[in-house]
Amino acid sequence: MTFERLNIKEMVGYSYGEQPSDLNTIKLNTNENPYPPSESVGTALKNFNTNALRRYPDATAQALREIVGNLHGFPPDHILITNGGDEALRLAVTTFVSPEDGFGVLDPSYSLYPVLAAIQNCRLVSIPATKDWELPDTFSKKLNAEGVHLTCIVNPHAPSGHLTSTKNLAKIAEQLNGVLLIDEAYADFIDPNLNYDSKELIDRFDNVLILRTLSKGYSLAGIRTGYLIGDPSLLEPMALKTKDSYNIGAIAQELSCAALSDQSYAKGNWGKIIRERKRLSGELTILGFEIPESQSNFLLAKPPIDAKKVYERLKEDGVVVRYFNTSRLSSYVRITIGTAEENNRLLFLIQKILA
Amino acid sequence: MTFERLNIKEMVGYSYGEQPSDLNTIKLNTNENPYPPSESVGTALKNFNTNALRRYPDATAQALREIVGNLHGFPPDHILITNGGDEALRLAVTTFVSPEDGFGVLDPSYSLYPVLAAIQNCRLVSIPATKDWELPDTFSKKLNAEGVHLTCIVNPHAPSGHLTSTKNLAKIAEQLNGVLLIDEAYADFIDPNLNYDSKELIDRFDNVLILRTLSKGYSLAGIRTGYLIGDPSLLEPMALKTKDSYNIGAIAQELSCAALSDQSYAKGNWGKIIRERKRLSGELTILGFEIPESQSNFLLAKPPIDAKKVYERLKEDGVVVRYFNTSRLSSYVRITIGTAEENNRLLFLIQKILA
Repeated sequence: MTFERLNIKEMVGYSYGEQPSDLNTIKLNTNENPYPPSESVGTALKNFNTNALRRYPDATAQALREIVGNLHGFPPDHILITNGGDEALRLAVTTFVSPEDGFGVLDPSYSLYPVLAAIQNCRLVSIPATKDWELPDTFSKKLNAEGVHLTCIVNPHAPSGHLTSTKNLAKIAEQLNGVLLIDEAYADFIDPNLNYDSKELIDRFDNVLILRTLSKGYSLAGIRTGYLIGDPSLLEPMALKTKDSYNIGAIAQELSCAALSDQSYAKGNWGKIIRERKRLSGELTILGFEIPESQSNFLLAKPPIDAKKVYERLKEDGVVVRYFNTSRLSSYVRITIGTAEENNRLLFLIQKILA
Repeated sequence: MTFERLNIKEMVGYSYGEQPSDLNTIKLNTNENPYPPSESVGTALKNFNTNALRRYPDATAQALREIVGNLHGFPPDHILITNGGDEALRLAVTTFVSPEDGFGVLDPSYSLYPVLAAIQNCRLVSIPATKDWELPDTFSKKLNAEGVHLTCIVNPHAPSGHLTSTKNLAKIAEQLNGVLLIDEAYADFIDPNLNYDSKELIDRFDNVLILRTLSKGYSLAGIRTGYLIGDPSLLEPMALKTKDSYNIGAIAQELSCAALSDQSYAKGNWGKIIRERKRLSGELTILGFEIPESQSNFLLAKPPIDAKKVYERLKEDGVVVRYFNTSRLSSYVRITIGTAEENNRLLFLIQKILA
């Protein structure tokens, strides 16, 4: 006897990256930040009054929404705080996509999207990326023709790291009949010289949501804080209807405020990761890897030998990277940018494997 | 232009209890525990290594599931940790109830249930409680006839505090075609002399889920930890498919372990609340209130005068209780059991209002 819904019974769940228990493992597989969170997070934790925990947290996360709003130049009503970025994605599907509707994504992309479509039992409409990992020209037209109500794009793209320009995104937002969610999970790692700024998209379009997370840029994957930026008309149904009332605990709210308030520390880490990305990409290219330009904290790298072998050999030697066993990605490994020391160890091992 | 699904546009969101910002307010409206969490929670917080936060938390909450399992006499595969009890309820609806299916509840009950039905766009099948707040004899039969796939019962019942026996629950579990979720959010406050123990229901039935929370019994509403107990065949689709992968942060997992490990402190508080419940109920009865016997940390109290007036007058004097403006409940106020001091203040004000 099974009690699951048929669509749940038949679906496959999300497969997250390995979390090795060996603390000596160099973990370059789930795009975590290699640096610890700001000291202000530790201070906030030590000063937190545990007696306050007997009460429910602020369901609206008002203080945190104000800090986030100030950071991006929006009033707090343009911000919704979520339990990690994944909750934001789930809420968008729940709120905007009925079972008979289409849910549009680029392929390949974040492998959670098909899982969310299967849970909602809606139609996944998957458009292949160009060979340069860009949105094809016919992207919006195809999605509109398929009755798509919500489209999710990761920018910079995962798993390639390719950055789509705001000009291109504006064109898509204008063309789409439904909501466009731009998942900027990795946007903190965009080279500042590129002046990427998606704020204008929110100002111009009432169908655009920007998703951000503190997991990567602020080294806080452990506390689960993400947020959506968008027009209040888009956020309100999620804030007042579809989200769990008390979705974010009081400690997570407090520590998120502390981390966001220390911008100089966060930016210092982003700078280090950007510099290491350039170095690692350069060194691997010299070793025969093909690597598209990445604006993320990872590289999608095509080794000169079998990618799965590279993944397995690295793992044997205590360095875990990500390998995706899908037709388009099976000749690549995805490598999270670590500290200089971790990256050196990776390069040393790769030279050994190639030798 | 609106992008919400029609069912979302037309529904009304969950309305949570007021959270007054004035710290002098005596808050007896959302069933929080009046005592602070165990000192072990503070110690765990101070000792938490914030550097670990840069990594994702344990998606399976293994250590916490082991502690919970030991507490209830089950292996960890019978436990699923959730982001508060509300996530558990949402996951059960998502996993077991398709839009064409029925979702069964007792009326009145937790006012989140109709909200979850509206989000899932499924049929809410609402069966009126007897005048003694008990499940009617025809409960299962009616729900089966309506194609109900999931039934949620709060036991002890909210908002009355009435306790249904495990014998009665076993009968329901046996009769129902679908899943029976017994929301034991308030079970820590059942008089131990009653020897209530729903473990046998899990042992006997593969369609029963028990929901517990640390919000009330362990004074941890602020960190959002709930859990489901049930047969692995019921939990697995939620654990591996429908829940957000990293639904519980690392700090919440750690503090929950600490709180659960200090049973003697928690039990001491439950005892105090049970004693105060008896005293407050007795005193209010002398003042002319009608109060069904409660096994929860609240009383559903029918004042000898207009209930809304009692609610409003108490609020003016800095004591907030809960008033439900629905036909069946409009002559009651729901009062959370506070500390002896808070309850004395409440009694003093009620005497003044009645005079």
